[in-house]
Amino acid sequence: MPPVPRDLPDHHDRGRVDFVGAGPGAADLLTLRARDLLAAADVVVHDRLAGTEALRFAPTARRIAVGKTPGGPSVPQAEIEALLVAHASAGARVVRLKGGDPAVFGRLDEEIAAVEAAGLPYAVCPGVTAACAAAAASRVSLTRRGRNTALRLVTGHDADGLADHDWAALAEPGAVTAVYMGLRAAARMAGRLIAHGADPATPVAAVRNAGRPDEAVLSLTLGRLGAGLAEAGASAPVLLLLGLAPRAGADAFDGAAEDMPTLAALRALEAAL
Amino acid sequence: MPPVPRDLPDHHDRGRVDFVGAGPGAADLLTLRARDLLAAADVVVHDRLAGTEALRFAPTARRIAVGKTPGGPSVPQAEIEALLVAHASAGARVVRLKGGDPAVFGRLDEEIAAVEAAGLPYAVCPGVTAACAAAAASRVSLTRRGRNTALRLVTGHDADGLADHDWAALAEPGAVTAVYMGLRAAARMAGRLIAHGADPATPVAAVRNAGRPDEAVLSLTLGRLGAGLAEAGASAPVLLLLGLAPRAGADAFDGAAEDMPTLAALRALEAAL
Repeated sequence: MPPVPRDLPDHHDRGRVDFVGAGPGAADLLTLRARDLLAAADVVVHDRLAGTEALRFAPTARRIAVGKTPGGPSVPQAEIEALLVAHASAGARVVRLKGGDPAVFGRLDEEIAAVEAAGLPYAVCPGVTAACAAAAASRVSLTRRGRNTALRLVTGHDADGLADHDWAALAEPGAVTAVYMGLRAAARMAGRLIAHGADPATPVAAVRNAGRPDEAVLSLTLGRLGAGLAEAGASAPVLLLLGLAPRAGADAFDGAAEDMPTLAALRALEAAL
Repeated sequence: MPPVPRDLPDHHDRGRVDFVGAGPGAADLLTLRARDLLAAADVVVHDRLAGTEALRFAPTARRIAVGKTPGGPSVPQAEIEALLVAHASAGARVVRLKGGDPAVFGRLDEEIAAVEAAGLPYAVCPGVTAACAAAAASRVSLTRRGRNTALRLVTGHDADGLADHDWAALAEPGAVTAVYMGLRAAARMAGRLIAHGADPATPVAAVRNAGRPDEAVLSLTLGRLGAGLAEAGASAPVLLLLGLAPRAGADAFDGAAEDMPTLAALRALEAAL
């Protein structure tokens, strides 16, 4: 339990927590509601990926970074929850800023449960999730009549390592799957899918930093997914769109960006998640 | 092919099309980028559901509604594509405004193909998709460690009627599926899922007008999905979150909103899609 902060504003009647989606990273992919909540916040508790771009809209708020840094320290989930409760209980308007949409691979339920147990008011402000930003970067639709009437969002790994999925369903012709945090799991996922009958020529759009000014798209196939990512020096965050080929004109991938963690650092990060 | 408009601004070097996600409906769930693109647009071609809220940010643009109205006329897809090409070819900055995210059940590929074939520049601006807005309204996470590491987005119907899905997979315990345009298909989908082994007690959050000021949430089960929606006088648009129970405190459903189409009108609309 962190110490209760001493410098809280005197607004004990208005303590609350807003779980806010920061969108994929670019400041202008924030919603107007998110911007207004940030401007009104006393405290912003933010992930590393929710990042510095959105924080410009909260110039006076106290900022607390709780995101995991590759190779660096990370704040345990229970401590994040205690932070939210401590500040809001003391009267602060707290924004819990999460990358993308807070309801998609964001540990939202755990944090809401803690805030609810403390009897504090809260709300959720949705955001642009990474799959949509990656589709925009690749200039393709995630669904199409006659091809796929379903879209899957999956995570490349879970608490136990490589996430298990219904590989046969994901391997079907025409299936489209958006893989979050998929860089480390890419080669193994491709192997499972091919073993379950997927065509190695199935297209894959790999999108780094989707929705950010330095976003970049790599056109690969399932059969060359791991090798292609390694050759390109892919670094986090990468979202994979399995089953979709990027259209010509999408910004091409040109190797690792200077300020991005390396693949090795990302593996350390993902292993710690 | 619609006639080329006569009142185009003299900017023949800058004709382009931006496919812009309007988000789920509330004006403040628009992104800052979408707001800026609307403000700079000469022409806005918009769906009915992308609606009037976002149009306030394009006060001077020519507005062309092409969305389907329940029981009313609808603009054929080929004519929408021709409109985009005609205006942008004549030099206009065209925003093609789509409800939610343009890449999710939005006919994006067809319209991009037409714009690309005409050699016009274009880009895609992602938006908040309805599933995320519905989760925010229901105050729940769409994914949770130990429950579901995959989320499915499906449509209740496709061009041939009730969309076919991998019912056995959707029926598995812990599975979470967001059903777009699901009102008309609700009862039949529930029947298929129960026939494939789903527990009739599986929770369902039904969210009307997710992300709009008059959003409302109904807590149902698979076994009572059709009856519960009918009793509540459910009207479009409704997004179903199969496998999720809304948290207490979500705004309750209180029957049809006055300005919403009736179920009968919605059925006519969905049949026409």
